Amino acid sequence: MSNPQPATASATKVTPISGFPEYLPAERIVEQRFLDVIRETFELHGFSSIETRAIEPVDRLLGKGGDTDKEIYGVSRLAGDEAEGAKWGLHFDLTVPFARYVLENAGKLSFPFRRYQIQKAWRGERPQEGRYREFTQADIDVVDVGQLSPHFEAEMPLVIADVFSRFPVGDFVIQVNNRKIPNGFYQGIGLTDVPTTLRIVDKLDKIGPTKVAELLVESGATPQQADLCLALAAIRTEDLGFVDRVRELGVTHPLLDEGLESLSTVIRTAMAHAPGKVVADLRIARGLDYYTGTVYETQFIGHEEWGSFCSGGRYDALASDGRNTYPGVGISIGVSRILGLLVGQGLVTASRSTPAAVLVALTDDESRDRSVAVAAALRARGVSCEVAPAAARFGKQIRYAERRGIPYVWFPGAGESGDEVKDIRTGEQVPAGADAWLPPGEDLVPRVARAD
Amino acid sequence: MSNPQPATASATKVTPISGFPEYLPAERIVEQRFLDVIRETFELHGFSSIETRAIEPVDRLLGKGGDTDKEIYGVSRLAGDEAEGAKWGLHFDLTVPFARYVLENAGKLSFPFRRYQIQKAWRGERPQEGRYREFTQADIDVVDVGQLSPHFEAEMPLVIADVFSRFPVGDFVIQVNNRKIPNGFYQGIGLTDVPTTLRIVDKLDKIGPTKVAELLVESGATPQQADLCLALAAIRTEDLGFVDRVRELGVTHPLLDEGLESLSTVIRTAMAHAPGKVVADLRIARGLDYYTGTVYETQFIGHEEWGSFCSGGRYDALASDGRNTYPGVGISIGVSRILGLLVGQGLVTASRSTPAAVLVALTDDESRDRSVAVAAALRARGVSCEVAPAAARFGKQIRYAERRGIPYVWFPGAGESGDEVKDIRTGEQVPAGADAWLPPGEDLVPRVARAD
Repeated sequence: MSNPQPATASATKVTPISGFPEYLPAERIVEQRFLDVIRETFELHGFSSIETRAIEPVDRLLGKGGDTDKEIYGVSRLAGDEAEGAKWGLHFDLTVPFARYVLENAGKLSFPFRRYQIQKAWRGERPQEGRYREFTQADIDVVDVGQLSPHFEAEMPLVIADVFSRFPVGDFVIQVNNRKIPNGFYQGIGLTDVPTTLRIVDKLDKIGPTKVAELLVESGATPQQADLCLALAAIRTEDLGFVDRVRELGVTHPLLDEGLESLSTVIRTAMAHAPGKVVADLRIARGLDYYTGTVYETQFIGHEEWGSFCSGGRYDALASDGRNTYPGVGISIGVSRILGLLVGQGLVTASRSTPAAVLVALTDDESRDRSVAVAAALRARGVSCEVAPAAARFGKQIRYAERRGIPYVWFPGAGESGDEVKDIRTGEQVPAGADAWLPPGEDLVPRVARAD
Repeated sequence: MSNPQPATASATKVTPISGFPEYLPAERIVEQRFLDVIRETFELHGFSSIETRAIEPVDRLLGKGGDTDKEIYGVSRLAGDEAEGAKWGLHFDLTVPFARYVLENAGKLSFPFRRYQIQKAWRGERPQEGRYREFTQADIDVVDVGQLSPHFEAEMPLVIADVFSRFPVGDFVIQVNNRKIPNGFYQGIGLTDVPTTLRIVDKLDKIGPTKVAELLVESGATPQQADLCLALAAIRTEDLGFVDRVRELGVTHPLLDEGLESLSTVIRTAMAHAPGKVVADLRIARGLDYYTGTVYETQFIGHEEWGSFCSGGRYDALASDGRNTYPGVGISIGVSRILGLLVGQGLVTASRSTPAAVLVALTDDESRDRSVAVAAALRARGVSCEVAPAAARFGKQIRYAERRGIPYVWFPGAGESGDEVKDIRTGEQVPAGADAWLPPGEDLVPRVARAD
């Protein structure tokens, strides 16, 4: 409210900015429901919330995240010195700021530190469906000092399975691998350039096995080595069967043993506590060099072409201050990506565009106080409502509610013995008292559900 | 999680950036509680949530909000063309983006449109206590097309009183005036340069009445006119008494009559629905030219030196697209300002640094599954918990809980007939089942309360 000078169309053409999505009120209610579920579930699992500032020094952002340099938005005062340049940039993820936060506050945090963080991030990428330049991510990480217990790698998928089970969406599957498995396997068959091999195999989904085999051979592998890489990547089991399947390939390496042991723990835990939601999928690589243990991806079943909505992994050094190293494991939910597709394709909708469950009608202007008092009594008992803006004909007031999806209209003094409330969907009107009436639970807040 | 390369202290010195506050987990819990109360109350009053992108075209931001041009942060891709310049800026309030959103979506919104918006904003101001460069605001506005019914001006203080009544802070008072009162009054006594007079009288708090009178005379007022201005500004009543007090000054003007009538409606409504929380205070001007009706400020009683935490008003043209004009009324809560002072001065604290109410102890590494199952059963009933990170001595596990303020430690299989739970504050340990036990309500979520 500090600047209510009129926004005029002449100042700038009023158009959306590509890659910076904004929602209408009913769509925003869907987004809020997803964010609420994520927060509530993270908190049930004992993660503490933090928020970090939107900006970081540019030299902390540069050189992180592979070739994202060109994607950083610089920030500087419009009236600042030219010499100042952009010394700050908007963060492009929540991990770089979190690592800095851990270093900055290490003396004040209790380790292992379980934190969640739900915030916007910005990247100057070319926008496309489900990829934005301003987007919301929801991250959990556990970080410790020096050593991080491996059971946290088994815990992450349980939290994520809990989150996704509460969403009004279809089935999902969390695909898990351990980087030590391909690392050890490749070395065990004599392929020493592990990063290159990983990067090629990671293209399986995009270019298919024939092309991957060709690229592997081009990079120096024998056809037999290439076949073995493809055979490993083809292994996917919902139980511990992946271990025997790998053993059948006849490859041995100490790192491979470690990886199989570690992934077995993750899958065993998932079978006990999130059955059917987690699979061992030895193709998952996350295409990056810095994960050192378990890696995760998540897909909606039937929408595999949308790719992963929720990814992460274990890394030995989230942060380091010279004295201490902070290993961590974490997962990030791409909230805007999920919402952009679900809302964009109309797969999930909200039953109304306002939190209000009740419109308190206005008999005449003189009785506004009475309607305001009804509204206050309803609110005191947790019922969201608003008073009709004007003492128009009741038909017009009902249409006001209808347009917003408000299910009930309250008529003060309409009945012989007091107020009445009408369900405008059925037309049923019954006597009611503002100090006792409650809507059915499913009408109290907007319903967010899969579209029929 | 997309960039877990280690953050090292060498990259950039890890220090806070002045004016960009970040909270530790326990402080963040206080902030979350305030934000939750604000959101819940706004929604109970039937306001719909929207969020707008962080950036606006620079030419939409420039020239708005008085001399804030120099405070705008420009945004541009680091790798972009120099020629590109900063065509975008971070928004410095939520009103300019809201006005643009209304114009952009006018065809899809239902008017009168009641929206709330809780987001960060950025200003390149010199930071000081309670004034930040990155800060969170929580705004409500009602906007309509063409005409806005005056009763919305009376509704705003009721919503704000409801919000502040739910905060764990002391008493507050919402001060209300109507710009038509000083406007009409000044014209009634022959002072035609209303903006200058308003700006001088607005300095009362800072420089006192003697200085204000001097400045008024310097600006061309007679000593008698100056005295009348001061007499008007001195009027402050909790009821409708202000009308007679103004009449006693013997000034008449049609605009003054309108203002008195309008303010009477606001105060009458407040006396009925928020008694003791709202006063007519004819000194309130908001120091700005563009409010056209009711104006609001809010202070904490006993902390008047902190200034207003929540201000706003009515304006005849929030936005205009050439065909339609959109009048509105709104209030903005300075969340970061309130929190910065309350948390900064230790006036409000959280009882723990994590949402977890229970730490499920680990008897030995082999029984982790059992502890995880207990945790899942507690969570299914809404109890936040975490499993101890390691099967250390119970004393060490209890200290782990203590450091975080977690009130309960759960011991699977500790009793003869099953599990036991210990309140580590009292030492009391009792038998409990994870499918039935609940902590007392005040322990379920962190307590956020005034410090003793």
